[in-house]
Amino acid sequence: MKNKVYLDCLNREEAQKLWITKLQEIGFFSNLPTEEVLTTDALDRVTAHTVYAKVSVPHYNGSAMDGIAVYAEDTFGAQENEPTTLKLLPEGEPFTFGCCYMVDTGDMMPLGTNAVIMIEDVQWEKEAAEIIAAAAPWQHVRIIGEDIAAHELVLPEHRCICPTDIAALLSAGLDTIEVLKKPTVAIIPTGDEIVTPGQSLEPGKIKDVNSYMLAAAIQTWAGHAERFPILKDKKATIQSTVKEALQQFDMVIVNAGTSAGRDDYTAEVLAELGEVLVHGIATKPGKPVILALCEGKPVIGLPGYPVSTMLTAELFVRDPVRRRQCLLAEKAEVVLASMVKPLPSTIGAEEYVRVSLGNVRGKLIAAPLSRGAGLLSSLTKAQGIVKIEMQSAGIGKGQQVPVRLLRQENPQNTLLAVGSHDLAVELLGVFLRRRYAQITLACANVGSMGGVMAIRNNEAHIAGVHMLDEVTGQYNIPILQHFFKDEPYKLVHMAKRKQGFMVPFGNPKNIRTLEDLTRKDVRFINRQRGSGTRMLLDFEIKKQGIYPKQICGYEMEVATHMAVAASVAAGSVDVGLGVQAAAKALGLTFVSVAAEDYDLLLNFADDDERFLMILDILKSKEFREEVESLGGYDLSCSGKFIL
Amino acid sequence: MKNKVYLDCLNREEAQKLWITKLQEIGFFSNLPTEEVLTTDALDRVTAHTVYAKVSVPHYNGSAMDGIAVYAEDTFGAQENEPTTLKLLPEGEPFTFGCCYMVDTGDMMPLGTNAVIMIEDVQWEKEAAEIIAAAAPWQHVRIIGEDIAAHELVLPEHRCICPTDIAALLSAGLDTIEVLKKPTVAIIPTGDEIVTPGQSLEPGKIKDVNSYMLAAAIQTWAGHAERFPILKDKKATIQSTVKEALQQFDMVIVNAGTSAGRDDYTAEVLAELGEVLVHGIATKPGKPVILALCEGKPVIGLPGYPVSTMLTAELFVRDPVRRRQCLLAEKAEVVLASMVKPLPSTIGAEEYVRVSLGNVRGKLIAAPLSRGAGLLSSLTKAQGIVKIEMQSAGIGKGQQVPVRLLRQENPQNTLLAVGSHDLAVELLGVFLRRRYAQITLACANVGSMGGVMAIRNNEAHIAGVHMLDEVTGQYNIPILQHFFKDEPYKLVHMAKRKQGFMVPFGNPKNIRTLEDLTRKDVRFINRQRGSGTRMLLDFEIKKQGIYPKQICGYEMEVATHMAVAASVAAGSVDVGLGVQAAAKALGLTFVSVAAEDYDLLLNFADDDERFLMILDILKSKEFREEVESLGGYDLSCSGKFIL
Repeated sequence: MKNKVYLDCLNREEAQKLWITKLQEIGFFSNLPTEEVLTTDALDRVTAHTVYAKVSVPHYNGSAMDGIAVYAEDTFGAQENEPTTLKLLPEGEPFTFGCCYMVDTGDMMPLGTNAVIMIEDVQWEKEAAEIIAAAAPWQHVRIIGEDIAAHELVLPEHRCICPTDIAALLSAGLDTIEVLKKPTVAIIPTGDEIVTPGQSLEPGKIKDVNSYMLAAAIQTWAGHAERFPILKDKKATIQSTVKEALQQFDMVIVNAGTSAGRDDYTAEVLAELGEVLVHGIATKPGKPVILALCEGKPVIGLPGYPVSTMLTAELFVRDPVRRRQCLLAEKAEVVLASMVKPLPSTIGAEEYVRVSLGNVRGKLIAAPLSRGAGLLSSLTKAQGIVKIEMQSAGIGKGQQVPVRLLRQENPQNTLLAVGSHDLAVELLGVFLRRRYAQITLACANVGSMGGVMAIRNNEAHIAGVHMLDEVTGQYNIPILQHFFKDEPYKLVHMAKRKQGFMVPFGNPKNIRTLEDLTRKDVRFINRQRGSGTRMLLDFEIKKQGIYPKQICGYEMEVATHMAVAASVAAGSVDVGLGVQAAAKALGLTFVSVAAEDYDLLLNFADDDERFLMILDILKSKEFREEVESLGGYDLSCSGKFIL
Repeated sequence: MKNKVYLDCLNREEAQKLWITKLQEIGFFSNLPTEEVLTTDALDRVTAHTVYAKVSVPHYNGSAMDGIAVYAEDTFGAQENEPTTLKLLPEGEPFTFGCCYMVDTGDMMPLGTNAVIMIEDVQWEKEAAEIIAAAAPWQHVRIIGEDIAAHELVLPEHRCICPTDIAALLSAGLDTIEVLKKPTVAIIPTGDEIVTPGQSLEPGKIKDVNSYMLAAAIQTWAGHAERFPILKDKKATIQSTVKEALQQFDMVIVNAGTSAGRDDYTAEVLAELGEVLVHGIATKPGKPVILALCEGKPVIGLPGYPVSTMLTAELFVRDPVRRRQCLLAEKAEVVLASMVKPLPSTIGAEEYVRVSLGNVRGKLIAAPLSRGAGLLSSLTKAQGIVKIEMQSAGIGKGQQVPVRLLRQENPQNTLLAVGSHDLAVELLGVFLRRRYAQITLACANVGSMGGVMAIRNNEAHIAGVHMLDEVTGQYNIPILQHFFKDEPYKLVHMAKRKQGFMVPFGNPKNIRTLEDLTRKDVRFINRQRGSGTRMLLDFEIKKQGIYPKQICGYEMEVATHMAVAASVAAGSVDVGLGVQAAAKALGLTFVSVAAEDYDLLLNFADDDERFLMILDILKSKEFREEVESLGGYDLSCSGKFIL
C-alpha cells in the first residue's frame, strides 16, 4: 500500500477516536495476556481475573478475649440471683455440656464451645465458673471466615493492587496471583544526526534524549518499554527493525522521520508493512504523527522535536498503554487562570502552550513559556498546559483559560518572576525553596520594561530590573517613578552586576575600552533598544563622546545576552556587551566595563510573609556568597529597601 | 528510662505535631544523604541540589531551514529593486564578507555567518545568490544555548524527576545526577503467633501479612523498606534486633506488641533504647501506637490488627518518609456524601470508618463497612474513609460528611448493592465491570429488609431480597407491596437459590428432613428473626406441623450464613440452615431443603442505561453458566421482570 499523502491533517479528536476504534477492532484491549507473579511483588499490577479466597480469614474460631469458652445454650437462663455453674475442663479434655475451658485472646475455641465470657465476668467456685448472665452464641469470638470466607470474592477482576490488597490476598491464601502482563513497547530512535548521550557530540549531531524520555513516560503509564539502538535514515534498516520489533512487542514507536522530507522514511515503511491510518494531525506542536497498524499491532511514528514527541505520546500512546491494562484514564487536574499576555494562534490547528502559574494577589496568573517544539526547557519549567481550540485565533490578554496541571505542585505556592533574566533571581528561587519547602519560583524572561508592566498589572510577584536613566545616570527609580506615578511600589536592591565586553577566549583583538569599539578591525553586535544593556551602552558612549555610527555593527541588534555571546563565539563579530554568566557559558573572555544596579520590584500584599522571606534571603550570608561565587556580582547591599 | 504508662492517650493531631517537631529536632529532614545515579534511571527520584547545565542546548548554531547562511550585516539595505549579491562559497572555505554558504536544516552555521535566508527567497545568478530583503541577525538559526545555556539552571533542588526532566538533563550533558537517597525503613514483625505466609497455618497462628503490606506502602511513599524475620515475643531478641536495625536504617518499625499486655515488650524495649514520646493515641482503630527516638532515629511501634497498622502507618510513617525526600504531602481527594445509616462513636476518641460510595439518583451515598480493626475485607472494599471527630458522638443517618477517597476510581461510577448478601450479586458486579470497564459494584450485607429500606430511601441501586410471605407462601412481592404501597419499584428475578442443611462432612447424623431436626440427638442453630432464611424455616416447619420448641437449639440465633456454618464446623451444633456457598467454604456437606426466589430490587432513573446493562447480563448465557457452576443456583428465569 502506498504511503498516504502527508498533510491531509486530521483533527486531533477524530484521530484519537479513530485510533482507539481501530485498536478495539484488532483486539488490542481484549484477551489480554496474563502472567503469574508472587503476591508480595504484585504492587500496582492489575488482577487478570476475579480473585476468590482459598482459605477463610480467620481460619479458625478464636477467642477475642481472655476468659472462658462455653456452649452458649448452657448459659441461657443465668441471672444475678440464679447463677449458672460451669465445670472447668483442662485443656484437651473432650467437651461435655455444662462445662467450660480457660482461653486467652487468639486461642482456638475448644470443639463444642461457641462463646466466650470475659474473665472479669466470672466468679470462681473451686473448679467451677459461676455465670450471672447468658452468653449469646459467638460472643467475643472471632468467627472463622468472619473477614473473608473461603471461595468468596477477595478482589474483583482488573483491580490495580494496592498495599492493603496484598495483605488481603496473602491472608486469603493467595501467595501468587495472575495479573495482566504489562504492555510492552519498542522504541526505535532513528536519524543520521542522532547519537547516544555520553558520546562526543559534534556540531550537526543531536543527542537521542527522546527514547529515554519515552521509556520513562511509558513506565509512568504502567507499561514496559525497551529502547532499540539508533537507526540511520535507511529505509531497509528501519523496515527490518520494525518487523523484528513487531515479533516481540505489543506496540512499536518509531521516532522520528515522520515528516514528508527527503530522509523521512517512517510513513513509507509503515505503509509497506501495513496500513497507515493517520499521517499528520492538525495540532501544534506535534503535526507529523503517523498512526499505523502493521501485522495486527499498533505502530506509531512520533515527531522528533522533544516537545512534539511528548505531546503526541500523551495523545496516542498513553491511553492505549493504560487501557491494555484496564487502568482508568488519568485524571487531569484543571485550574482556571488569567493569561498574562496575548497568545495568537492559527485557526485550523489546535495548539498546546506550556505556562507557568502563580497566584498574584488572589488571582491565578498563567505566563506562557516559549512555544518552540525543540525547547526542552519549556517542559521542565512548565507547571501547566493550555489548549487553544482549533477554531480559535488565540487567547487574549487577561482571558480566563482552563490550565491542565502538569505536576503535583500547588500553583498557589508558585512565585512568578517576570522581568530581566538573571541567574541570581533563579538562585533566589533555590533559596526560597530550600527554606520554605513548598515554594517554587517560575522565571519568565521579558526584559526590565516587561517586568515593570507585569508588576503594575498585578501579573507577577517579582521583576528583576536594571534600567539606567540617560538623563540622571540613576538606576531604576526615575523610570519607575514615571510608570508608577503615585501608585506605591516596592523596590529592593539585589546586586551590583558587572556588564562587560564578551570577546573570544584570550581577547585576541585586545578590546579593553569603549574607545576600542570604534576601531576599524572591530565588529560589534548590539542589544535591542529598550534593553537594560543597551541603555547602559548608550549612556556610557555618550559620556565619552562616542557616536553610534563610529561603532561598526551598532545597528545589528539581538535580543538576549546569549545571542550576543553566541555571535562572538561563532566568529561573526568580535565583541558584544553583556553579563559575565553568558560569557562563561560559551567559554568567552569577559572584560568588565561598568557595574549596574540590578534591583527587584516586589509585588506582595502587605500581610504576605513571602515578602519578608525574600528580604531575609537577600540579606543572608549564604545567599550573598553563593551569588558572588558566580562571578560578576557584588551583593554587599543586597536586601536594602530602596522605595 | 522507664516506659511511659500506656493509655495517657494523646490526641492524634498533637501526636503528629510532636512527632514532626521531634524529627525536625533530630535532623531527620536536614542534611539529607545523597547518591549519584544514572540520569536514565532517575525517574521519580528527587534532585539533591540545584542542577546546572554542563553544556549548552543546542550545542552549536544550527540552521533551522534549508537555505543560505549569510552575515546579516552584509544584507542590510537589500531591497526588491536593489538586490544584494552574495558569492556562494564551497563548504569548508573560510568566510569573507559578502559571501554565503548553502546550508540544510540542522547544519552548523559556517564560522562568520549569523543568519539564514530560506532557499525559496534566493534568486541565483551563476555562482551568486541574489537577496531582495535584509536578514536579521540569527534569523532562522537555532542559536547555541537557545534552549539551555551552559551553567544555567536546568532543575531546581528537590525536584521530583519526571520523563521530560530526564530528556532535559541528558541534553544538558548530565549523564548522572545526584539525588536524595530513598529513606530506608526496617520492618520488624514480632509475635509468638505470627508465621510467614505460605507456611502451614495452625489454629491460633496468624499470618504475617502486615510486614508485606507496610513494605508495599512504603514503596508507594517513595521509601525503601526491608522486612526482617519474624521475632518471638522475647524482650532480649526484640531489643537486639531493633539495635541492629538502627545501625543500618533511617527508620525502624516494630509490629506489633505495642499494647500494654503480658507479652507486649515493644514500649519497654524502646524506652530502654531511647525515649518513648508517645504511647497510645486517642484514635479508633489504632490506639496502641508507640512513637520513640532511639539512637537519634525514629522508631515506631505499630499495632497488630491490619486496619490499625495501615491507618497508623499513614498517620506517622508516610509523611516523615515523603518529607525526608522533600516530596510534598500527598493530596487527598475529598467528596461530600450522605451517610446511609447512623454511626455512633465514643466521645474522646477520633474514629476512622471505611465506606463504600455510590451516586444514587444524583446523590452521593456513603455506606459504612464493618469497623473491626482486624477486617482486611473492609480495606479492600472501601472506596473512602470518614473521620468522626474526637468531640463527636457520631454521625447521624443522612448527615453530609466529607469522605477522603482511597482509590482513583470515580465514586460516580460505583453501584451500591445493599441487601441480602449473595455471591451471585458479586458476580453480577464482575460482569458489569468486565463489560463496562469503569463500573465498580460495592456490596454491603444488611439483609433483605435492610435492602428494601435502602432502596425506598434512595440509598442503594441494587438490593438482593429473598423474603417469603408466611401467609401466601409467595416470595418478595407481598412484602414489597406492603412497604412500597403505591410507590413504584422495579423487581427482577435473579435466581432460584437452594437453601439446605449444613452438616459435618459426610452427614454423620444422617440429617435429611425437617423432621430430623426434632430428633433428641440433633442440636440445631438458627438465624435471626427477619432474615430470609429464618422466614423460610418458619414457613416450612409450620407447613409440616413442627413446633419450634420441638427443635433443640431453635432459640439460638446467629446473624449470617457463615456463622451457622462455623457453628457446625466447630462441632458445637449438628446442623443449621443456609446456602450452599457457606457450606462449601468450610467443607461441610449440604442437604438441599427448599429453593427460594432470590430477586433484585433495582433503583435507577428511567434514563439510566445501567438498568438495561444489568438486565442484559442477567439474561446472558455466560452469567447464568458462571453462577450455576457455583452450585445451588438455577438461573433459567434470570432477568425476568417481575414488577
